Amino acid sequence: MRNLNQDTITQAVLERIANTPNPRTKEIVTSLVTHLHDFAREVKLTEEEWMQGIQFLTKTGQMCDAKRQEFILLSDVLGLSMLTIALNHDKPAGCTEPTVFGPFFLEEAPQYELGADVANGAKGTPCLVSGRILSLTGETIPGAKINVWQADEDGLYDVQYVSPDRIQARGILTSDANGGYHFKTIVAEAYPIPTDGPTGDFLKATSRHPWRPAHLHFMVEAPGYERLITHVFRADDQYLDSDAVFGVRQTLIADWPQQADGTYTMNYDFVLNPIAKKS
Amino acid sequence: MRNLNQDTITQAVLERIANTPNPRTKEIVTSLVTHLHDFAREVKLTEEEWMQGIQFLTKTGQMCDAKRQEFILLSDVLGLSMLTIALNHDKPAGCTEPTVFGPFFLEEAPQYELGADVANGAKGTPCLVSGRILSLTGETIPGAKINVWQADEDGLYDVQYVSPDRIQARGILTSDANGGYHFKTIVAEAYPIPTDGPTGDFLKATSRHPWRPAHLHFMVEAPGYERLITHVFRADDQYLDSDAVFGVRQTLIADWPQQADGTYTMNYDFVLNPIAKKS
Repeated sequence: MRNLNQDTITQAVLERIANTPNPRTKEIVTSLVTHLHDFAREVKLTEEEWMQGIQFLTKTGQMCDAKRQEFILLSDVLGLSMLTIALNHDKPAGCTEPTVFGPFFLEEAPQYELGADVANGAKGTPCLVSGRILSLTGETIPGAKINVWQADEDGLYDVQYVSPDRIQARGILTSDANGGYHFKTIVAEAYPIPTDGPTGDFLKATSRHPWRPAHLHFMVEAPGYERLITHVFRADDQYLDSDAVFGVRQTLIADWPQQADGTYTMNYDFVLNPIAKKS
Repeated sequence: MRNLNQDTITQAVLERIANTPNPRTKEIVTSLVTHLHDFAREVKLTEEEWMQGIQFLTKTGQMCDAKRQEFILLSDVLGLSMLTIALNHDKPAGCTEPTVFGPFFLEEAPQYELGADVANGAKGTPCLVSGRILSLTGETIPGAKINVWQADEDGLYDVQYVSPDRIQARGILTSDANGGYHFKTIVAEAYPIPTDGPTGDFLKATSRHPWRPAHLHFMVEAPGYERLITHVFRADDQYLDSDAVFGVRQTLIADWPQQADGTYTMNYDFVLNPIAKKS
């Protein structure tokens, strides 16, 4: 392995990883090296561009902390997150479709009783959310764990505020004996994803806007069913056709009517996919 | 752009970047998105693997600081660094070949007189290095700026030590009126690249050793010539055929004979490529 040139080096790298013990790791690394090299050859990457790439990735990693995941944000705007979801959720018709997880989920969200106000002081117009957790055959699923989270009327999630360090507009609820759920929160508004990091630089360089249509995040879990990670979008949003992270699905759009007292309401039923029984 | 699936999402992302003003940026991003998506589809990337990738890249970025560049190290072991060099240095026969820059160069290296000991206390067996800076037609090049750097006998560069914070085994020299250079240092030894970060995890997962054959780094600059970034390797090294970063070229291997007094010597002439005149 001396005197490798632009055509022979790829095969040399693949030979070097030929003894990778885990076959899946080998498969992934083989494909990754092949595509990475093909990319560099295809664009005839210059050394200056290579260094810009090194610095871009470095800055992306250094932007990450317990409350910010810039690599997920980058993956989202590159369409890689939605592609990965599409590759892994070939669900039967009738199941609620999944969408991106996003970078703002918090493991340690507070537990709430049904009917509680999960906004917990977050700024926004009140909104009453309700619906049911259902199986594909229409049976209600009691005891499902429902994780909800969202941005406030300024387009910011609680974790985006430096202080006070308070958990707002997120919580965990449990569906009742009839599979029902309901809670109070604030109405979701369209917001721009954070543009103060490398992902923002990328959007600027490619003349893309950073906006996401208004949505409420849901993660629904119940024994015997696949975990569902999704959003419910607002029907009247101007960004439904240009979501910065490519996450919109027609079946996830709901009406969020405003009532006479100014409060919004939104009702949505989630249909879970049963975990396939081992035959 | 709603209801994108695993086949339509790539085109949707490419359409979204269609207005990128800089044509080169557009070319690079188009190729990058296409290969990234092809990779994910080809291996049918799972969500768990995607998250492992996110965490791997995050850790790689967070390992970088003023003295450590883990993304360059990763690029090196993936063969991307040498590929980029090969793509950009189609030099005429007779020119000294380039190789990887590596992650241990320091801008602020000290200036030395010819004959000085650039080791500056670094541990190792003494070695006298000499040679000439030449043009393709054999003319000597006086006043060339010669940057040298290397690891000590423990295989560590000065920047890899936490303290004392002293610049060792690196320096800048200037070729004399006859294009000649000579300095004292320590003999280069084979060493493993740092394996305490994600790049080390990658090498372990792919059953690869981290060793680089013994080498001395050179960067040579002179007006009218392309900057040369290269190494000189030791002829007797056991890792010449399995360099962890794929950097060995036959023409960069030199004899480093040991003299009766234990001191090593190494003589190597560098031939610079003239910058093409604008026609």
